[in-house]
Amino acid sequence: MELLVRYLDRSDSVSSAMTQDTINEENLRDDLRYYFMSPCEKYRARRHIPWKMVVQILKIIMITTQLILFGLNNQLVVSFKEENTMALKNLFLKDYSGIDEDDYSVAVYTQQGVYDSLFYVLDQYSQLAQLSVGPIGYAADEEGNLLPLTICKEYYKRGTVDPSNEAYDIDAQLETVCMSHDPKTANQWKTQNSSFFELDFYRLVDIKVTFQLKGINLQTVRSREMSDCYSFFVTITFDNQCHSGKVKIFLDIDAQSSACRDWKISGTAQKNTHYLLVFDSFIILVCLTSAVLCTRSMVLAVRLLQRFSTFFHENFNRKVCEEDQKEFLNGWYLLVIVSDIMTIIGSILKMEIQAKSLTSYDVCSILLGTATLLVWVGVIRYLGYFQKYNVLILTMKAAFPKVLRFCCCAGMIYLGYTFCGWIVLGPYHEKTGDLSRVYPDSCPITPNNSWDRLQQPPQP
Amino acid sequence: MELLVRYLDRSDSVSSAMTQDTINEENLRDDLRYYFMSPCEKYRARRHIPWKMVVQILKIIMITTQLILFGLNNQLVVSFKEENTMALKNLFLKDYSGIDEDDYSVAVYTQQGVYDSLFYVLDQYSQLAQLSVGPIGYAADEEGNLLPLTICKEYYKRGTVDPSNEAYDIDAQLETVCMSHDPKTANQWKTQNSSFFELDFYRLVDIKVTFQLKGINLQTVRSREMSDCYSFFVTITFDNQCHSGKVKIFLDIDAQSSACRDWKISGTAQKNTHYLLVFDSFIILVCLTSAVLCTRSMVLAVRLLQRFSTFFHENFNRKVCEEDQKEFLNGWYLLVIVSDIMTIIGSILKMEIQAKSLTSYDVCSILLGTATLLVWVGVIRYLGYFQKYNVLILTMKAAFPKVLRFCCCAGMIYLGYTFCGWIVLGPYHEKTGDLSRVYPDSCPITPNNSWDRLQQPPQP
Amino acid sequence: MELLVRYLDRSDSVSSAMTQDTINEENLRDDLRYYFMSPCEKYRARRHIPWKMVVQILKIIMITTQLILFGLNNQLVVSFKEENTMALKNLFLKDYSGIDEDDYSVAVYTQQGVYDSLFYVLDQYSQLAQLSVGPIGYAADEEGNLLPLTICKEYYKRGTVDPSNEAYDIDAQLETVCMSHDPKTANQWKTQNSSFFELDFYRLVDIKVTFQLKGINLQTVRSREMSDCYSFFVTITFDNQCHSGKVKIFLDIDAQSSACRDWKISGTAQKNTHYLLVFDSFIILVCLTSAVLCTRSMVLAVRLLQRFSTFFHENFNRKVCEEDQKEFLNGWYLLVIVSDIMTIIGSILKMEIQAKSLTSYDVCSILLGTATLLVWVGVIRYLGYFQKYNVLILTMKAAFPKVLRFCCCAGMIYLGYTFCGWIVLGPYHEKTGDLSRVYPDSCPITPNNSWDRLQQPPQP
Amino acid sequence: MELLVRYLDRSDSVSSAMTQDTINEENLRDDLRYYFMSPCEKYRARRHIPWKMVVQILKIIMITTQLILFGLNNQLVVSFKEENTMALKNLFLKDYSGIDEDDYSVAVYTQQGVYDSLFYVLDQYSQLAQLSVGPIGYAADEEGNLLPLTICKEYYKRGTVDPSNEAYDIDAQLETVCMSHDPKTANQWKTQNSSFFELDFYRLVDIKVTFQLKGINLQTVRSREMSDCYSFFVTITFDNQCHSGKVKIFLDIDAQSSACRDWKISGTAQKNTHYLLVFDSFIILVCLTSAVLCTRSMVLAVRLLQRFSTFFHENFNRKVCEEDQKEFLNGWYLLVIVSDIMTIIGSILKMEIQAKSLTSYDVCSILLGTATLLVWVGVIRYLGYFQKYNVLILTMKAAFPKVLRFCCCAGMIYLGYTFCGWIVLGPYHEKTGDLSRVYPDSCPITPNNSWDRLQQPPQP
Repeated sequence: MELLVRYLDRSDSVSSAMTQDTINEENLRDDLRYYFMSPCEKYRARRHIPWKMVVQILKIIMITTQLILFGLNNQLVVSFKEENTMALKNLFLKDYSGIDEDDYSVAVYTQQGVYDSLFYVLDQYSQLAQLSVGPIGYAADEEGNLLPLTICKEYYKRGTVDPSNEAYDIDAQLETVCMSHDPKTANQWKTQNSSFFELDFYRLVDIKVTFQLKGINLQTVRSREMSDCYSFFVTITFDNQCHSGKVKIFLDIDAQSSACRDWKISGTAQKNTHYLLVFDSFIILVCLTSAVLCTRSMVLAVRLLQRFSTFFHENFNRKVCEEDQKEFLNGWYLLVIVSDIMTIIGSILKMEIQAKSLTSYDVCSILLGTATLLVWVGVIRYLGYFQKYNVLILTMKAAFPKVLRFCCCAGMIYLGYTFCGWIVLGPYHEKTGDLSRVYPDSCPITPNNSWDRLQQPPQP
Repeated sequence: MELLVRYLDRSDSVSSAMTQDTINEENLRDDLRYYFMSPCEKYRARRHIPWKMVVQILKIIMITTQLILFGLNNQLVVSFKEENTMALKNLFLKDYSGIDEDDYSVAVYTQQGVYDSLFYVLDQYSQLAQLSVGPIGYAADEEGNLLPLTICKEYYKRGTVDPSNEAYDIDAQLETVCMSHDPKTANQWKTQNSSFFELDFYRLVDIKVTFQLKGINLQTVRSREMSDCYSFFVTITFDNQCHSGKVKIFLDIDAQSSACRDWKISGTAQKNTHYLLVFDSFIILVCLTSAVLCTRSMVLAVRLLQRFSTFFHENFNRKVCEEDQKEFLNGWYLLVIVSDIMTIIGSILKMEIQAKSLTSYDVCSILLGTATLLVWVGVIRYLGYFQKYNVLILTMKAAFPKVLRFCCCAGMIYLGYTFCGWIVLGPYHEKTGDLSRVYPDSCPITPNNSWDRLQQPPQP
Repeated sequence: MELLVRYLDRSDSVSSAMTQDTINEENLRDDLRYYFMSPCEKYRARRHIPWKMVVQILKIIMITTQLILFGLNNQLVVSFKEENTMALKNLFLKDYSGIDEDDYSVAVYTQQGVYDSLFYVLDQYSQLAQLSVGPIGYAADEEGNLLPLTICKEYYKRGTVDPSNEAYDIDAQLETVCMSHDPKTANQWKTQNSSFFELDFYRLVDIKVTFQLKGINLQTVRSREMSDCYSFFVTITFDNQCHSGKVKIFLDIDAQSSACRDWKISGTAQKNTHYLLVFDSFIILVCLTSAVLCTRSMVLAVRLLQRFSTFFHENFNRKVCEEDQKEFLNGWYLLVIVSDIMTIIGSILKMEIQAKSLTSYDVCSILLGTATLLVWVGVIRYLGYFQKYNVLILTMKAAFPKVLRFCCCAGMIYLGYTFCGWIVLGPYHEKTGDLSRVYPDSCPITPNNSWDRLQQPPQP
Repeated sequence: MELLVRYLDRSDSVSSAMTQDTINEENLRDDLRYYFMSPCEKYRARRHIPWKMVVQILKIIMITTQLILFGLNNQLVVSFKEENTMALKNLFLKDYSGIDEDDYSVAVYTQQGVYDSLFYVLDQYSQLAQLSVGPIGYAADEEGNLLPLTICKEYYKRGTVDPSNEAYDIDAQLETVCMSHDPKTANQWKTQNSSFFELDFYRLVDIKVTFQLKGINLQTVRSREMSDCYSFFVTITFDNQCHSGKVKIFLDIDAQSSACRDWKISGTAQKNTHYLLVFDSFIILVCLTSAVLCTRSMVLAVRLLQRFSTFFHENFNRKVCEEDQKEFLNGWYLLVIVSDIMTIIGSILKMEIQAKSLTSYDVCSILLGTATLLVWVGVIRYLGYFQKYNVLILTMKAAFPKVLRFCCCAGMIYLGYTFCGWIVLGPYHEKTGDLSRVYPDSCPITPNNSWDRLQQPPQP
């Protein structure tokens, strides 16, 4: 930038004799000067209303609103799933305390305990309709037949273990035996298939009880939206893999939402979701405008650079240096364009999700979230036009490599320390993987070092 | 201030020839010098005892004492309400653990659980007199008839839900059915209105049990004060809005205090609350004095400014510049007057509250609290008279805009980060709204930057 | 110090002509120089072995050893009392969870709950001998009669409360009715004195059950020490003062230790506690030596000052300035003497405690602890003899008033903020008095300010 | 280094006239220059490929991989032991909450509680086979006879304690009575040996129930590794040492792994553990290479030093100063050699452990962990070749003594404070030894002081 300015100044002093060239040069110089002005100066210079800035401000408001609306909606869905998970755990797990330990829900230590927990699941499942408070029911297939509950037990094919004599003879291959039964008579299994339930704990690796439930999110009925139907794929695992005398019971739920097959909401006008669609469309429009404006600016910049380098080559027979060329490439524009594209894709996804034709909440939220982050960070650019903020930003820019270098050096020591601490201290504590204990408290290099350097403004 | 001093000095050197003008000028200069003196210097110069300062010191002691007394009294009331809430929760909520989860008190997951909890409320309510340890009883109307307990259930008007087939047909309009009964026979409801208690959980949105209890805060009898009568409006809500299989039970209490209708405390002389009234009155008096003194000082300052600007206009034909005019407006006086007015209003409110004719504890505590804060902050002013503290205060004054600017810049990034983190990370954790998790730990701009700048004293 | 040095230097250059005076002066100058030397330099100069330093080093080792021994012994006693308290709580409090809530142990919310808890105490007490695992028993008086258990109930003399009609008529005077009974038949009270146990909860203020138990700390038998006998004065309070529907149950124990009346330990040689007495005596000796040496040094310093000022007065006819006089008063000596006196008193107390003739653990531990702190802090003095540490210490000395001033200023704002926060935010949170919530997070003045100043060494 | 460079430079200017000497000198100078080059410069100078560096990089990758593999394997073993401990605690301890309090597992306060807990152990033990979910069984001796369970009670030989009269007569010698019985009939003891179980709690010091269980870690069967057999030496202690009315119950497990006596895994090809052995061997090879290379470099350096000092002595008749001699001793090489030796020993141990002929996990993990730490720290050396990092490292080197000195000074005060705080505050809080409460919050010397100094690069 500085060199550029010098060129401009130099050409000032030289350009007194020539005529046509002078005019061209003058034009170029004016264009260059205009190009590097802030919106405010541009307005003062050519009464050019800063449309790009207006669009950005509009965008920031709209995108944030959209994000908040989407987030609140998401939260409803997430809390519905969470509460359902909690309800099912309380229904099906015996002696569930309400809080998961580590990663499992309940631990059982006796053979009787395992049988009790297993039969408790079956009993509760068979009387689900009389138990549950929520609108869930057994899943049915297309013909209306209720899907069965399945119990699978996995065990070593053959094996005798005699710990007293330190002797074992095991066929390490795993065998899986399953049985399935109609939901409503699940509690009669015990008597019917008693042989299946004679577990040989030495060989047993795990028992998996799987069943499928259907639920309806009636919550949305109240806000006059169409409600989702959910399929809950419930898996209750009695995990004896470790053979340590502790059987861990897990309950995993895979909840999948879909449009209900047959539904009717009456008694009230359906909420007009058109407004939301219009809002999303408008956002897409604004982002398109913003992207187009920024692309135009970048194209103009490239052209200007070409004119400038041609002129330079002709008049001074020198190439414009690398650094000055970079000045013409405005990183902020790139940021804005990237965020625009993300917003557009995110908004389209969001509209699809609202129309229940897609359920990729995750992708959509990542897109919209990142876009919003970029837009807010983009505001810093406008702060850069004010002199005092600029110093702040330039300082940060100059300090970045130093910070990086410091982090690299500290990282080395930290990595070594972590590995060493993990292996040396780890196994003799209860929680082996807890990294925070290993962290060096008396670490000789702290970030203070670099931060203080940061405070000196870069020498011009 | 500096310019002003220069004017004064200049006039010094000039004023050797004139006579009448010189005297006027001398007077004005003396008055100006006196005006900008500290209380200590004033005392040395004209043996003027610093009444304002004495009043301020008196005020700070009295206001703080008053605040502490009021706060301790408030605490008694608040703890009475809290303990009553806790007692009612333990009486009416089945399986209450003593600690609220999230925002609800108890969660129930089975139909039988809902019935049990509901009937438990009715049973306990009907035998309240034999249960409760505290002086609470059923509320009665003017004629002495006990107010009834009311149960309302809210449900979708019509609806069949068949989750197994992903089918539902719901009338989204809500219908509310209530019934009320005499307290003492509440436990007979089950048999009398069994149909009412056949809940259709698919349609049920919530059940609300409301009743009103009366209590007396006998605590104050011991401190020989008149005791308050309380009305507890208790609402027990069985919340099934979410239809997630988890019915949350809330118990909300709205406690309203009022003077008792018919009371008599004997056996001991009633405590003389006159002392407290006298103390409050004295505070009002002191504050009035302080406000009047400060107002006088401000009026004098304005007059002095007028004299000074007139003189300036006449002699030098120039206007006193904006900045110098500001020097005459003492912000501290304004602070003192505002705090005085707040104290006076707060004290009057406090007297009314003590006379049981008002219950606006909140307004009163905000007024008194803010006033005390202002008075304590006002002490810094007197520290400003000592040279070394002054440097501290001036430094802070100069650094303030820089800090503000930095906060603004960091705020932008933080906002963007928060929105992004909320939407991207949020829904996949248990507690979605927990902002602290989202906070950028490796935030590149830290306040250190600005604080270090703060330490350089402003260049004169 | 500097001025002093200048005087010395000046006298150097002048003292070439005089004879007798010169010798005197030389002597004085030498003495002065020697006085301000470090132990190391003294040794080099006059081969003077630094006894004081040797004594200090000896002292620091011995005092620390003594402190640790005393502390470990204390800990045994404290843990015995704590475990006894815990055991008695578990024996006498119904439904005790093992952890106290807030300040009370158990809270009861129903009338039946109060009766149950009360009778539980009596039942458990009557069968204490069959219950308790520890060597505790009912206390007996001189003649061997067991001391009775006493129940006192305190209530308003007369009173009718009718919360439903907001009416009450109370005699605020408190009446206390007590009854006492033989321990072993305590569980028959219910039938014998049923009228006493008909509690009128509206009037009831509190019930206090008090009894006395005796215990023996057999723990010390194993370490071959004489064991202490303990009297436990147990008070179980059912607190209904607040009349809020929540009766808090407290169990307070006042444990007093004394020598057992009649004891015999056989089967093993008693541990020789003489060693400990000899060690304590030796410490007293060392401390006396240290105190005497330091006092001597101070006396010598005062004499030297007198000689110096006399000389100064005679020769230069000037008074020694205040600051130079202070140089002769060595604060470290004062510190050492204070710590010595505290150690001596503490050691004597400790010996008395070990002989079971005193039980003032608190006073003794405060004396010994403070003495140890002072001795360790005193080590800094010897570090001051090394040049580089000296800079550190001088810096700290210079920065101290600045830090103090800053703290004073910040304290003002903090106090105001605290009062305001307490009254405004307090009552609307559960825990009113929690100061940490009120703490200003965005406090504009942080200690950084002062600490950075601290780092500049003082200008000479 | 600098002096050395000066010598070199000086010899440059002088060496114009001589011939043979000049060549020698030239050679020496070249060798010296080459010696102090970084690998990068060496490569540029003599196209010498930096083998040492390549070996180091290879080593860092391999050692880290080895450490992670070993650590993961260790974690499996540790978690197996932990889960077994937890399972046994749940099986044998009555009313075990799942979490240990302080250091004991359960506390019992009544005599009946002690009997119940004791008989619970015996009952559970006698029916272990029907209870436990894991592959554990009673231990058997060589002939296949089950090892008996042993109960030992330790008590004062003789003693009567009468707390009511503050009288006791105790024989402080301890007597131990044991009995042992066949596991399967353990629950019949109560009837057979009822006299043994009549405990005199006044005299009782502790009861120890010890038995031995055998277990097999079948977990490894699944990963096709040979499984370990474990002997669990279980000790359940009823601790009444304190005689405070609280009997603490501890369950300690000493788990020893060994190769199983008689085992057979069929049905699947055994996992080829050869790969791991090859990998370990390769690491040993690499480390040997690295150690040899570094040793060679050190030997070369010593020789170069000898040549240099001889040359110096001959030409300038001066000795090479101490500091320059140190330059030839490269600390990094020492570091690498130490880490290599540790890795080699560690790897050999690891191979032995995998072959089940050793079980010293601890020694092995300390060796491997420390070696990895050293290797990672060694990376800093290569960063030192880059100019900017070098500044960082030199700064750290220069600041180290200052930091040490500061720590020493602060340590003094801290030690004094800690001792004082422990004794003065300690005994009157529940947790006496909690040091963190004692920590001085307002400590006047903070590390900031030194860290700021750290930031100034050392003056050359």
